[in-house]
Amino acid sequence: MFEVKPLDLKNCQKLQAKIDNKTKPAGALGRLEALALQLALVLDQTSREKQQGKLSVQDPVQINRPAMLVFAGDHGIAREGISIAPPEVTQQMVVNFLQGGAAINCFCRTNDIHLEVIDAGMLCPVEHDNIKHQSLGQGTNNMVEDCCMPVEQVERGLLLGRVAAERNIKLGSNVLGFGEMGIGNTSSAGAIQCCLMSLLAEACVGRGTGIDDKQYQKKVYLINKALAFHNARVKHLETMPLEIMASFAGFEIVQMVGAMLSTAEHQKIILVDGYIATAAAMLAIKMNENCKDYMVFCHESGERGHQLMLRELDVEPLLNLGMRLGEGTGAALAVPLVRAAASFYNDMASFETAGITAV
Amino acid sequence: MFEVKPLDLKNCQKLQAKIDNKTKPAGALGRLEALALQLALVLDQTSREKQQGKLSVQDPVQINRPAMLVFAGDHGIAREGISIAPPEVTQQMVVNFLQGGAAINCFCRTNDIHLEVIDAGMLCPVEHDNIKHQSLGQGTNNMVEDCCMPVEQVERGLLLGRVAAERNIKLGSNVLGFGEMGIGNTSSAGAIQCCLMSLLAEACVGRGTGIDDKQYQKKVYLINKALAFHNARVKHLETMPLEIMASFAGFEIVQMVGAMLSTAEHQKIILVDGYIATAAAMLAIKMNENCKDYMVFCHESGERGHQLMLRELDVEPLLNLGMRLGEGTGAALAVPLVRAAASFYNDMASFETAGITAV
Repeated sequence: MFEVKPLDLKNCQKLQAKIDNKTKPAGALGRLEALALQLALVLDQTSREKQQGKLSVQDPVQINRPAMLVFAGDHGIAREGISIAPPEVTQQMVVNFLQGGAAINCFCRTNDIHLEVIDAGMLCPVEHDNIKHQSLGQGTNNMVEDCCMPVEQVERGLLLGRVAAERNIKLGSNVLGFGEMGIGNTSSAGAIQCCLMSLLAEACVGRGTGIDDKQYQKKVYLINKALAFHNARVKHLETMPLEIMASFAGFEIVQMVGAMLSTAEHQKIILVDGYIATAAAMLAIKMNENCKDYMVFCHESGERGHQLMLRELDVEPLLNLGMRLGEGTGAALAVPLVRAAASFYNDMASFETAGITAV
Repeated sequence: MFEVKPLDLKNCQKLQAKIDNKTKPAGALGRLEALALQLALVLDQTSREKQQGKLSVQDPVQINRPAMLVFAGDHGIAREGISIAPPEVTQQMVVNFLQGGAAINCFCRTNDIHLEVIDAGMLCPVEHDNIKHQSLGQGTNNMVEDCCMPVEQVERGLLLGRVAAERNIKLGSNVLGFGEMGIGNTSSAGAIQCCLMSLLAEACVGRGTGIDDKQYQKKVYLINKALAFHNARVKHLETMPLEIMASFAGFEIVQMVGAMLSTAEHQKIILVDGYIATAAAMLAIKMNENCKDYMVFCHESGERGHQLMLRELDVEPLLNLGMRLGEGTGAALAVPLVRAAASFYNDMASFETAGITAV
């Protein structure tokens, strides 16, 4: 469905040499140096010069129209009462996004990020000029007793995710972040993590946005029950990303996976947010491992299982602020670091041009 | 010399309640919530309403004209060859700052920060329209065999730091970061840390911007020698910040201490950068412990001793990107987080106004 090219590393040494020759001791900008190299490698791939076979390390890394796509969807498992909020809060929060009153609105405003809100499959749709209607249905089935959706719907969702990414890429975005809203979706992400990493729920499932002990025990019990049900239903489930999504995913997660794959296909930068978004990233990588080269891991969530996901992926995110909100908030906060990395790569003087004794 | 008022905490609960009632689970914005509370508490203190005794939690937190003041100075100990670069690089890098080609220029540009470059005491002064001349002399004495400067010069330096802070506060800045440039100044900061924390150099001194084993051993040896020399010269040196500065500080460090104290005196926000800036922050706190309430610790440096300083101060910085460059670069990268915290505090909807079922 998606063809993601591996990064062409032919210019890697040249680009690294450009970074090393900036007026600073080698490595002194820490993680921003690796980020600058990744930006240069990814955004180089599609540059005109490259296509004409005359790429030059003089090409600046342009960060264009960073976009945050927030997918909303409801979850059958939310009816079990294992979240701090009832399912109608998905709709209420989407209205809040559209009115500009949520955390993601604030962060997109202060960091100059284009925000798009997408109905990927809400229980109660919202009418508003600024919502994109890409609904796969009014919430998923309850994974404990059924598939969340049939595989055909997963495939449709992946293509709708591509539509959302391509809409923004066409408008000029070359850095795309993905956020989500969906009461119950830490359960969905938890089940996906358990399945992909062969874990029991107690090893990674957390308290989402803040459930109590009793709810937590029920959440663990239900996720383990869902894992047993679907592992019995499909042999080698952990190797089959489409079946994993059919079993456990929310509509918003499926569309995020499609949007990530599409962004990688177009050789643009993917900003990976917290727990739910990283579950989507793991699925995208499972579908096509080249995807990972295009991903910037933005923050480590306070949600318990996230650290395990990041360790499994062998990545270190840019921020660790103890946040656990979703909506793409962690990814939005990383955008200034992406701009800073591009800026030093483009505009910082070299030892020669500045006339500085090389260190 | 400096009168820093303790923070008035009378409104603390009201301000915290405002944060808790935003449309997010309690605590879900992690460290940004504590930052928002600190911003509200500090910037409240001088608000008109407060002075008239009618402070309201409706008052927005305004971040005005963030400024980065970069102090440059040279160090007598640099003549010992324990840095990766010769002393003339201080001057060359200052020229680079003035020409806009250094990392701090890039980060100030992308994050909309006003940058000011100050000659606090360079070996080779620079003539340029945009440098502020506040030189205490052409580099300090070598701390291994002498005082870096007499106590009277420390006092003059603190007052010059105040001049720099007040110049920017008068122009409207209420968030001030402080950076530095000075070949040899990790040795100076290391000696200050050892003295304040009663450590030997081997426990905390690092490789600065990247010296080799032989230089490192010499650096440790010389700092221990300087510690022994000044501890023999002044009884209970560790309790006397002016004497500590006279013994070990650079002119840029002394002026940073004064600028920090002045910023706290005016009840504005202090952005604390990495290793050298945190040594200055420790001295400012030693002179007046109320200072600490006004400080935002921005990043954890890759320089070895910095983690120990942060632990001693019992603070957790916002960023940890493995950077070790100085210039105020870590503080500049934290400015978007300060803006994001102010933005969610000011503009995020409450559960009531958004009509959301409280969680």
